[in-house]
Amino acid sequence: MSDSDLSFWGWGYAEKFPDESERDELATRMETMLGFPERPRLDPPTLSDVSIPESSVSVPDHLTEVCSTTTEDRIRHTYGSGYRDLVRGFHGDFCSAPDVVAEPRDEGEIRVILDWATDERIAVVPYGGGTSVVAGVECDPEGDGAGYAGVCSLDLREMDQVLEVDEHSRTAKIQAGATGPQINDQLREHGLQLRHYPQSYEFSTLGGWIATRAGGHFATVYTHIDDFVENVRMVTPSGEFESRRLPASGAGPDPNRLVLGSEGSLGVITEGWLRVQPRPPYRARASVRFADFDAAVDATREIVQARLYPANCRLLDSREAMMNEVAMDGSHVLVLGFESTDHPVDDDLARALEIAEEHGGTVSGDPSYDGPHREVADDEAGDPDRDDDEGDWRSAFFEAPYKFNALVSLGVIVDTFETAVTWDQFDRLHEEITEQVTEVMEEECGAGFLSCRFTHVYPDGPAPYYTLLAPADVGRELEQWREIKATASDVIEEYGGTITHHHAVGRTHREWYEKESPDEFREALHAAKDRLDPERIMNPGALLDER
Amino acid sequence: MSDSDLSFWGWGYAEKFPDESERDELATRMETMLGFPERPRLDPPTLSDVSIPESSVSVPDHLTEVCSTTTEDRIRHTYGSGYRDLVRGFHGDFCSAPDVVAEPRDEGEIRVILDWATDERIAVVPYGGGTSVVAGVECDPEGDGAGYAGVCSLDLREMDQVLEVDEHSRTAKIQAGATGPQINDQLREHGLQLRHYPQSYEFSTLGGWIATRAGGHFATVYTHIDDFVENVRMVTPSGEFESRRLPASGAGPDPNRLVLGSEGSLGVITEGWLRVQPRPPYRARASVRFADFDAAVDATREIVQARLYPANCRLLDSREAMMNEVAMDGSHVLVLGFESTDHPVDDDLARALEIAEEHGGTVSGDPSYDGPHREVADDEAGDPDRDDDEGDWRSAFFEAPYKFNALVSLGVIVDTFETAVTWDQFDRLHEEITEQVTEVMEEECGAGFLSCRFTHVYPDGPAPYYTLLAPADVGRELEQWREIKATASDVIEEYGGTITHHHAVGRTHREWYEKESPDEFREALHAAKDRLDPERIMNPGALLDER
Repeated sequence: MSDSDLSFWGWGYAEKFPDESERDELATRMETMLGFPERPRLDPPTLSDVSIPESSVSVPDHLTEVCSTTTEDRIRHTYGSGYRDLVRGFHGDFCSAPDVVAEPRDEGEIRVILDWATDERIAVVPYGGGTSVVAGVECDPEGDGAGYAGVCSLDLREMDQVLEVDEHSRTAKIQAGATGPQINDQLREHGLQLRHYPQSYEFSTLGGWIATRAGGHFATVYTHIDDFVENVRMVTPSGEFESRRLPASGAGPDPNRLVLGSEGSLGVITEGWLRVQPRPPYRARASVRFADFDAAVDATREIVQARLYPANCRLLDSREAMMNEVAMDGSHVLVLGFESTDHPVDDDLARALEIAEEHGGTVSGDPSYDGPHREVADDEAGDPDRDDDEGDWRSAFFEAPYKFNALVSLGVIVDTFETAVTWDQFDRLHEEITEQVTEVMEEECGAGFLSCRFTHVYPDGPAPYYTLLAPADVGRELEQWREIKATASDVIEEYGGTITHHHAVGRTHREWYEKESPDEFREALHAAKDRLDPERIMNPGALLDER
Repeated sequence: MSDSDLSFWGWGYAEKFPDESERDELATRMETMLGFPERPRLDPPTLSDVSIPESSVSVPDHLTEVCSTTTEDRIRHTYGSGYRDLVRGFHGDFCSAPDVVAEPRDEGEIRVILDWATDERIAVVPYGGGTSVVAGVECDPEGDGAGYAGVCSLDLREMDQVLEVDEHSRTAKIQAGATGPQINDQLREHGLQLRHYPQSYEFSTLGGWIATRAGGHFATVYTHIDDFVENVRMVTPSGEFESRRLPASGAGPDPNRLVLGSEGSLGVITEGWLRVQPRPPYRARASVRFADFDAAVDATREIVQARLYPANCRLLDSREAMMNEVAMDGSHVLVLGFESTDHPVDDDLARALEIAEEHGGTVSGDPSYDGPHREVADDEAGDPDRDDDEGDWRSAFFEAPYKFNALVSLGVIVDTFETAVTWDQFDRLHEEITEQVTEVMEEECGAGFLSCRFTHVYPDGPAPYYTLLAPADVGRELEQWREIKATASDVIEEYGGTITHHHAVGRTHREWYEKESPDEFREALHAAKDRLDPERIMNPGALLDER
């Protein structure tokens, strides 16, 4: 992966930005399906259009090999991939570019960088794939970085190796800068996979996943990267932190849990042992349509409370189903998938479908069953090149962020937000979100579209995920977005949800995180930070407020 | 439960201490089976034999209602239930009795006690069932409590209610002082159970489980109380800590995880929402005999890596099987159990047995299947009063600690220790433990017996649990025990295990915990403690060293 292939302002590969006719088609769809007024198409910026403030940091001689202050490197490390980032990037606004970009090749170089940054009091922002949607990697030298001598983006991309594989325990030692595909490519020769597929899989990195408690595609049991982490190493300004490699322990509070979710505020995650597994040959999948959303929710709850452990249990409301062209008839759709490395999961699917049918669901088409046990396999079974995760799945799920680039260029506000809440509070929360977010979009933008799906489900509650679209007034879109975002976040906070199930806190969610989390806990985190990062140089403003 | 029914020196109800003939039988068994020399039987002490130092604390008027300084109360709050506790108790040594025992009825009273203790600098030791086996509730006024004006044992027994039940989300709000049976008795009217059965279930409390990350009977997925905790409340010297009730979250490091395993060192856990479930009507159980231990280990590993999620997956080595009268023919035995609230688990058991047989195992007797789906149920199926967990199970598993009382009276050193380790390191660790612990027992005691079982298993490693027996030289037994314990702990530390999978750290394991855990993490914990407990009154010496 070379930087020059990547969009400097938006998601992913630059060449994937849609051409005029594709954008026209998308604009028409927005107009006819959602009634969004047509607006002039804007063209993306070019790198040469962008100017940024001069760097306030002079790199010492011993760091010139690993540090860059070129305009391009600084621009490319300014933002994550949230709507606010795309809009600013699209308009060529990179004012908050870091002063310097470091690309250390090992922990020793990270140590040297942190020592330098501590001495000079330079803020350090660990950077993986740049896929944060919560301003987790943006430390504005005029904002959170203002009290510092400068801001250094510390890019982990050079540390992308699977260092060791323990096939017996099914674990692998992986460097923090490895992206999803890099990890699985290296594990393939051992017949193993990590099987953690966040939507940002293509570009996001292990270190980023651990720092933000990323959510993968598993709907149950192994929902967050947390569940895969056997141990972790982190370089902090005050020293190295390494937990013991253990399948489990009861010795005091779990040290991994201080690192998981620390969002770069305590140190730089460098590597960890992760639980991996072979590709599961046994699969069973089906989707179920429901006329009634509440019934679909009840069915989903019963399936997860039955502890059938589906790998996929994704409830799409009718709007989500329509936008994804899964069902155009107004149905809500429950997509169910089971997988196993060891044994058929047909009966698990059958039982889940039985529950769904008891709640008025109708199985849509024929369920699909794969595996060595099926005498008559379907078309694709047995094809060694077939891999749903990197085939069908990628095309639908992993391409979605590319669409965001196009929508921004069409003057559409596009964002997602998500939460988790106990079942007893879900109905009310969902109703309030639907009502209030739709209302604020209408007020601010004159129209709006909101859809919901469950990405993960737990015996005690779902993780609903919302996608919103609204026509922007170009120039005023960030103001409009802020109102919408604040409304959604306020409702989540008020009605018992968490401000994030897997998007992290960053800077965008900090206000609500402070309401949600125990004050005494944040005090404890601040105290821990003061001990591990005495000059408080690590990612100031992300997760924790500055003091 | 009234204190007067309970042994003041040993485990459980006093009346269950075996009579002469039972003790004779046990002594004979030790002699014939293990070759332990016979020694004079000693009789347990009576309360009136015991004298303790005068209390150094004078209770202020506003606390007289909730505080006691009677000799009996102080004696009864001196120790946990480890071997070292039993021996000292048996010999009437209660020198380290706390100065005062508090029994608050609500958080308000806890607040007042902590304020008083902070002002007076009195050490406070939260106390649940007194079942710690790692000196977690013993703060010797001459030892860890020496720098304090006194030691207060804070007993949570008055806070034993299930406060609220959310049947829809399958969760319940439970006070920290409730014991296992108290919790399940109160949940029964809702058709629910917690289904967390540590061996101390009869007396230990929710607060103790959370504070020590207790392990229950589930071998997979829901192994620790951690997995049941939706939220938690803790009163700290600096204020109240309450996490939000959520099925999951990705908002920063998990606040529950600071409390889980905190061992009373940060505050007093007062209540939490816990995940509960109906009693599972579907069950399938079998046991498999193996001639070869390594083959049994491989089978166990494959079963857990197959993610069949057995509720029980307990591998007993031949010594363990013999001592528990499960198999007398030198076989190693894998006890497998599956359960479900929703669907038959017969196929899961069948697949697990298939794997076991592939590794040379022989299914012992007929597997047992229960559930509404079985046309011909076995004798007990359908009997509404039947409950394995509180019937068969209790009699074998929950009675074991009573045997320890008897063994102590017969001059036998009896202890258990446990760990968790990755599969790749298990063989070597197990070999070293077996060799070195057997050797040190022979050196110190002239003989010794060591057996092993797996209590919990993970895809990346097992949690082996060891039981040891050795003939004591009465008067010198603690010295002997210390040598044995240190050897076992050193080997665990050296060969990659954790010093505890679910027994906690307390004071007994602290030396090894300090080697195992990252220094930077303990620094962070100390910093958190300084913030939440500025006078460092909370359980000094447990988990964290004093400073």
